[in-house]
Amino acid sequence: MTAGRLTVVGVGPGRPDWCLPAVTERLLAATDLVGYGPYLDLVPHRVGGRRHPSDNRMEAERAQAALELAARGADVVVVSSGDPGVFAMASAVIEVLDEGGRDHAGVEVEVLPGITAAQALASRVGAPLGHDFCVISLSDVLKPWAVIERRLDAAAGADFVLALYNPISRHRPWQLGRAIEVVRRHRSAATPVAVGRQVGRPDESVGVVALADLEPASVDMSTVLVVGSSTTRVVADRPLGSSLYTPRRYGA
Amino acid sequence: MTAGRLTVVGVGPGRPDWCLPAVTERLLAATDLVGYGPYLDLVPHRVGGRRHPSDNRMEAERAQAALELAARGADVVVVSSGDPGVFAMASAVIEVLDEGGRDHAGVEVEVLPGITAAQALASRVGAPLGHDFCVISLSDVLKPWAVIERRLDAAAGADFVLALYNPISRHRPWQLGRAIEVVRRHRSAATPVAVGRQVGRPDESVGVVALADLEPASVDMSTVLVVGSSTTRVVADRPLGSSLYTPRRYGA
Repeated sequence: MTAGRLTVVGVGPGRPDWCLPAVTERLLAATDLVGYGPYLDLVPHRVGGRRHPSDNRMEAERAQAALELAARGADVVVVSSGDPGVFAMASAVIEVLDEGGRDHAGVEVEVLPGITAAQALASRVGAPLGHDFCVISLSDVLKPWAVIERRLDAAAGADFVLALYNPISRHRPWQLGRAIEVVRRHRSAATPVAVGRQVGRPDESVGVVALADLEPASVDMSTVLVVGSSTTRVVADRPLGSSLYTPRRYGA
Repeated sequence: MTAGRLTVVGVGPGRPDWCLPAVTERLLAATDLVGYGPYLDLVPHRVGGRRHPSDNRMEAERAQAALELAARGADVVVVSSGDPGVFAMASAVIEVLDEGGRDHAGVEVEVLPGITAAQALASRVGAPLGHDFCVISLSDVLKPWAVIERRLDAAAGADFVLALYNPISRHRPWQLGRAIEVVRRHRSAATPVAVGRQVGRPDESVGVVALADLEPASVDMSTVLVVGSSTTRVVADRPLGSSLYTPRRYGA
């Protein structure tokens, strides 16, 4: 039996016209699509492969199942939203390869990138990621909170723009509030923060608020945040889409 | 006279099938395309708008010229490679809006995202950006070197993966070597580094080397680097495309 192939793709934030043609081509060719149910629902209906939806937080099992399908000869696509390489399935799949030794040696594995949430949000408000920035997940499910706090403190202290993923969930209610406290050690109350919920979806909601006015209770698990650096500016009298930017020039 | 519109787009790293359909649609509709010459050359020939190529390092003048065209009623697209929001033209355009007061108040300005170099490189080697990371430009043309060094030290000290843009140029020959020294305070000699030159172009060249073996002389201005964190791993016996990843889990 000839082993098949596995491609890990990101369909972007959800709009079909923000998904790479290379990804669409792989989706159309696949025999099997594996992914968290709501992400599979982002794949157009004309894509005909068998769909294997799974629950969230089952990344390792999902990666294992996808590799086994491919090892039996299938042409498998693992579907993430956003970019599969950023807090998503690409790392989970390669971790299974790493732990499995020669188990999947014959399976050809490829990753295709996608537009990740921070880019989607940034484009909706202007150019807040126009200068050095960090991308941090606030989820302490897979890493200790102390590591997150140390990173927030280091990145805010060095005046990076901060893109914050997974800011809150039912099981992680206090982490965002604590993160704001850490950032406030280094940033003024007026620091602009872009807040995007369901960016790129029909029910998208995007805004810019001052750091001191950011209410954790207004944020949910489908929200991403971009916290400005000391140089990030709000442009007076511009519509939201060209209102926020971080200048290319810094300091003297 | 009715003011026109201006859209800042990124065509991604250069492959047509890595460019968003939303971007292609705007390119096809535009009356005028403005950009650094080599980036305009990435736009397919079937795109018919007037092309206004400019030199590199003329971002402010290019942004000003594009806004003036749009103010006179044109449908202008400003073309970047990669993501226009990441060290590219979106920030330059909005800065001109900010400085120009009401000059361009009637011009509708929109930004569309694209695949940036770090994502493209990451996807070619696996998933090195699978955990918290920073994106830093090593160019000290628009910011003091001391700021860059402080950021490298902070980010490496807090164990972020580091994506390094603009690592070297004829006029900036020593900065990458110095950056490696700063990172080496915090990282072992064996830390894997992904090195990508012209990623997504016909003459793409991608590899993974140990931090201690990274030769600045082998790097040029069309190269991007991703330096692993302490947990980034190389998978034994895998082809390059699925060989490097940063696990989702960190620490205890």
